[in-house]
Amino acid sequence: MKIDGKPYRTIWPTQDGNAVEVIDQTQLPHQLVVARLASEAEASHAIKTMQVRGAPLIGVTGAYGLAMALRDDPSDAALDAAVGRLLATRPTAYNLRWALERVRRDVAPLAKHERAAAAFEVAGLIADEDVELCSAIGDHGLALFREIAGKKRQGESLNILTHCNAGWLACVDWGTAIAPIYKAYNAGMSVHVYVDETRPRNQGAGLTAYELGKHGVPHTVIVDNAGGHYMQRGMVDLCIVGTDRVTINGDVANKIGTYLKALAARDNGVPFFVALPSPTIDWALADGAAIPIEERSPDEVRFIAGETKDGRIETVRVTPRESPAGNPAFDVTPARLVTALITERGVCTASRDGLLKLFPENAKRSA
Amino acid sequence: MKIDGKPYRTIWPTQDGNAVEVIDQTQLPHQLVVARLASEAEASHAIKTMQVRGAPLIGVTGAYGLAMALRDDPSDAALDAAVGRLLATRPTAYNLRWALERVRRDVAPLAKHERAAAAFEVAGLIADEDVELCSAIGDHGLALFREIAGKKRQGESLNILTHCNAGWLACVDWGTAIAPIYKAYNAGMSVHVYVDETRPRNQGAGLTAYELGKHGVPHTVIVDNAGGHYMQRGMVDLCIVGTDRVTINGDVANKIGTYLKALAARDNGVPFFVALPSPTIDWALADGAAIPIEERSPDEVRFIAGETKDGRIETVRVTPRESPAGNPAFDVTPARLVTALITERGVCTASRDGLLKLFPENAKRSA
Repeated sequence: MKIDGKPYRTIWPTQDGNAVEVIDQTQLPHQLVVARLASEAEASHAIKTMQVRGAPLIGVTGAYGLAMALRDDPSDAALDAAVGRLLATRPTAYNLRWALERVRRDVAPLAKHERAAAAFEVAGLIADEDVELCSAIGDHGLALFREIAGKKRQGESLNILTHCNAGWLACVDWGTAIAPIYKAYNAGMSVHVYVDETRPRNQGAGLTAYELGKHGVPHTVIVDNAGGHYMQRGMVDLCIVGTDRVTINGDVANKIGTYLKALAARDNGVPFFVALPSPTIDWALADGAAIPIEERSPDEVRFIAGETKDGRIETVRVTPRESPAGNPAFDVTPARLVTALITERGVCTASRDGLLKLFPENAKRSA
Repeated sequence: MKIDGKPYRTIWPTQDGNAVEVIDQTQLPHQLVVARLASEAEASHAIKTMQVRGAPLIGVTGAYGLAMALRDDPSDAALDAAVGRLLATRPTAYNLRWALERVRRDVAPLAKHERAAAAFEVAGLIADEDVELCSAIGDHGLALFREIAGKKRQGESLNILTHCNAGWLACVDWGTAIAPIYKAYNAGMSVHVYVDETRPRNQGAGLTAYELGKHGVPHTVIVDNAGGHYMQRGMVDLCIVGTDRVTINGDVANKIGTYLKALAARDNGVPFFVALPSPTIDWALADGAAIPIEERSPDEVRFIAGETKDGRIETVRVTPRESPAGNPAFDVTPARLVTALITERGVCTASRDGLLKLFPENAKRSA
C-alpha cells in the first residue's frame, strides 16, 4: 500500500541481496524510519522488540533471519540451532514456525554452499505468496461486507470495528482483517472503521489508524473500553480481526482484548469475523487452551511513548512508581464466538469441519 | 484513608469556612496537590476537568459549589440557576442531582440571609454521611468476600478485579467498590487486586493503584484488554465496580468498559458485584437505555500525560495527528449481568424487587 503516495511493503531485500530493510514499526505513527536487518541476530531483535510484528510479517522476517544465519554457517547443526533461536523470539504466532519449517524443509536437501541463497529465495517467495493470500482474503471478505452493507439503508456507511493491527503493516501488503476494508474502499463502498487503540502497545492507535489514514479510509480511534458501548448502540455492523494462531477446532489466539470484543459482538448480534492466511492454522493443536500466551514486559503497561507538542518522542510513566503490572500479550477467543473465518480459499465456520472443507489436504495432520 | 501515614479525605472545608480544599486528582499518581475551590465557578471547573471525580465526590463538590453560589446571591432565581449550571457539569452521575436537590430542598424554606450557611452545613453533612454509607458498603461487601474466600484453598489470595476508581478518591473516604477490599485487608484477609488501567483517563492506573499502594494492598495494574484472559484462566475470583447511576430495574451506568468485564465475568462464572450508596439510585428511570452518556473530548484519547524519567509531567500524542477519536465516558451494564448490588443497607439482586426490599420508602417514586 502507499504512504504519502509512494508504494511500500513492510519488508524487502536490499539491492545487494545481503540484508532486508523493514519499516521500524516502533516509530509509527510519528516517524517513518526504515531499519536494515543484516543478520539473524538483527532479525531476532527486530521481532522481539516489535520493530516488525503481525503474525505473517513475523514469519517472513524469521525466514529471512534464517537465511542470514545460513550465510554465516550452513551446517545442519547451525540450521537447527537458528530455527530454535528464531522460534523463541515470539511464542504465540504460528506463522513463524510455519515459515521456519518451510525454509528448513526446502534447504535441508541442498548442498551446504547452496543453502543460504536458496533460503533467501524461499523467504522472498513466502513474502510474495503472503501478498497473494492477503489479496484473496480481501476479495472473500469484500463479498461478506457487500452482503452486510446490502441490508443497510442506502447511503449509510458500513461501520467496522477492528482490534490491534491486522493491516498491511502486519503482513507484507494488504493485510488480513484490513484487506477487505481496502478492497471495499477501493471499490467505492462507504466504509468507516472504529479502531481500538489496543493497549498496551497501541497497535491500533499507532499502526491501524496510520495506515488507514495514509490510504484515506475514514476511521475513528477509540479506547479498547468503548467498543461494547458502540455495539450496544447499534453503531457497529461487523467486527473483523486478524489472528496469530487458529487451532483445528476454530479457536483463535489474537491480541489481548479480542475475546472481550467477541463477547460484546455475540451479546449484540454483531457478526465477528477472523481473517487469516492458512499458514496461521496450527493443524497440530486441538484447541486454544494449549496455545502458549506470551507474557511481555510489565513496562509496556507502565510506560507509554508518544509525541510531545514540540515534536520529540518521549516516554512517560502512567502508573505509580511502585505498582507492579501484568502483561499477557494475547488471549484466546473460543470458536463459539466467531461468526466465520475468512481465508485465502474462502469463508468457513470456525470449526474442524469448516477448515477441512477449505483445506482438505490437512485432514491427516489434524486427525 | 492515609497517604504516607497522614489521614486524608478527598474534600474538606477550609478553616475560615469560605471555601473547600480537594486533592487535585488530575495530578495523581505523580504529585499530591491540594486545590482550593472558593466559588461555584471553581467547583464547576473542578468537576468538569476531573480534578474531582467519582459519583459520590462529584455530589459533595456540587453541594459545596451551590453553597458558594448562595453566598454570592441567595435569591430563588440564583438558587435555581446555580443548580442548573452545576447539573450541567457532568450528565451521567446521579449523585450530583441528588445532592443539589437535597441542598435546594433544605435551604429553600429559609430566609435568604440564612441560606448560604445552611447550604454549607448540608454539604458537610452529605460528606459525613457518605463516609458512613461507604463504611457500611464495605462491611456488607466484606461478608460476601469472606463467603467466596471460604471456597478457596487455605492460604490462597482472594483475587479481585476492579475497573476505574471506586475507591476513597471517588468518594469522601473508604470508597464504594474498594471499601470491602480495605475492610478485608484491614481484617487480615489475603487479597490481591487486578486494577484495570481504565483508558482513556487512567483512573485505575493513576488513582486505584495509587490509593491501594498507599494503603499497602497488593495489586497488579493491567490493561483494560487483559481482564477477560485472566478470568478465562481462573485467576479472578470476583469483580467489583462502582457506578454513576443505577436505574430501578438494576441496570448500571459505570466507566466505559465496565460492560465488557461484566460479559467476561458471566462467560466464566465469575461473580460481578456493583457497590453503591443509595444516592446513586435514580428512582425515576425505568432502565439504563435512558441514562445520558457523556461524550468527552477526543483529546483524552489522543493524548496521554505521565511522568518522564527526569520527573517532569509531560503530555504525549499517541495517535496520528490527523486521526479523529471518539470518547464515550460511560457504558451501561444490563442488570442481567450483575450478580448483586452492594448498598449501605445490604446486598440485593440487581432488580426493582431487590432494590425495593432494601429501600421500601421509594416504592411510590419508582412506580
